[in-house]
Amino acid sequence: MTQKADTKFRRAVERGSHDFTLACEMLDAGKICHVGFTLDEQPYVLPMAYARLGDQLLIHGSVASRLMKNLAAGLRCCVTVTHFDGLVYARSTFHSSMNYRSVMVFGCARLITDLDEKRSSIQALVDHLLPGRRAELRKSTPKELKATSLLALPIETFSTKCRTGPPSDPKGDLDAPVWAGVVPLSLTAGEPLDAPNVLPGIPRPDYL
Amino acid sequence: MTQKADTKFRRAVERGSHDFTLACEMLDAGKICHVGFTLDEQPYVLPMAYARLGDQLLIHGSVASRLMKNLAAGLRCCVTVTHFDGLVYARSTFHSSMNYRSVMVFGCARLITDLDEKRSSIQALVDHLLPGRRAELRKSTPKELKATSLLALPIETFSTKCRTGPPSDPKGDLDAPVWAGVVPLSLTAGEPLDAPNVLPGIPRPDYL
Repeated sequence: MTQKADTKFRRAVERGSHDFTLACEMLDAGKICHVGFTLDEQPYVLPMAYARLGDQLLIHGSVASRLMKNLAAGLRCCVTVTHFDGLVYARSTFHSSMNYRSVMVFGCARLITDLDEKRSSIQALVDHLLPGRRAELRKSTPKELKATSLLALPIETFSTKCRTGPPSDPKGDLDAPVWAGVVPLSLTAGEPLDAPNVLPGIPRPDYL
Repeated sequence: MTQKADTKFRRAVERGSHDFTLACEMLDAGKICHVGFTLDEQPYVLPMAYARLGDQLLIHGSVASRLMKNLAAGLRCCVTVTHFDGLVYARSTFHSSMNYRSVMVFGCARLITDLDEKRSSIQALVDHLLPGRRAELRKSTPKELKATSLLALPIETFSTKCRTGPPSDPKGDLDAPVWAGVVPLSLTAGEPLDAPNVLPGIPRPDYL
């Protein structure tokens, strides 16, 4: 590795930060990240579930996956989490925009080999991805643990970027007879769907 | 460039495809992609707005942006669009999962320099990102057009992956006295927020 990631802001500098607390807030508000890495000169970007545990990002996958094997071997990556918060309707095409919050974490992940750390990392993932669920599930079997790779990426080199608020039209556009504003967007849960083979008498849990 | 992207499925092969129509459906259902590229051995993954026009993915940005400059110069990239469709509650941690649809498009983008193609690409972007809006907006000025880079990435080398449906618990787990099923997720629009400086008497448009 020749150098650290370049996290300097060049464009829309006022939207960027390197604030750890803000990065953690954005990370804790999401469940899906996009993991970027390059193999044989070709970049790949894959969606993955994740959780934050302290100052580390946890991702997991099959021990057989190419992504997990390469990251475990120290391949550099970038993990990005984005919240798409709204469509920004300005008075011109040029100033139309999106509201969003985004974190990029750069570095090399570490394969978690210690069994206790592996178990607690899996717990952190379940607690983040499916809050309230863990108490109801059986323990993972040794075979299941063995089939799962856990990676920890330190949240050390990172940057956040966000856009919030109404459109930023220049003065000259403000008298255009056209509506302007924001349509907020959010990821929303629908009515739970029971699996076809749920045992009779088992209610939907409160944590859904 | 030494070789094409490796789009062979190794894991959960039944979830993958190279079907163009399916890829287009997934692309047309989204507005935000994640663009991955590598500079100085460091991968970067950035969220960007996009639109599909025929067999090309369009992305746009400032001519001054590092991403746009490098992609315009032929840097290889991967553009991934992911729809996070649901949380899958299985009877074990190991079989818990996510429902999702995801497309990865690989290759080198082309900078759109022809003015007519640039205008029609911007129109395609506005029509996809803010449907119904274009007729109300003033024309882009020559200065605005000059400040905007448009890139076209051919949808030639790509793959899709998705998981749908209920949890896939093994037989041995089916008598566990625990609920199982899916909580569907979708990106949902909220009540529009008027910009503070909307002119009096201008109603919210129907297309919102």
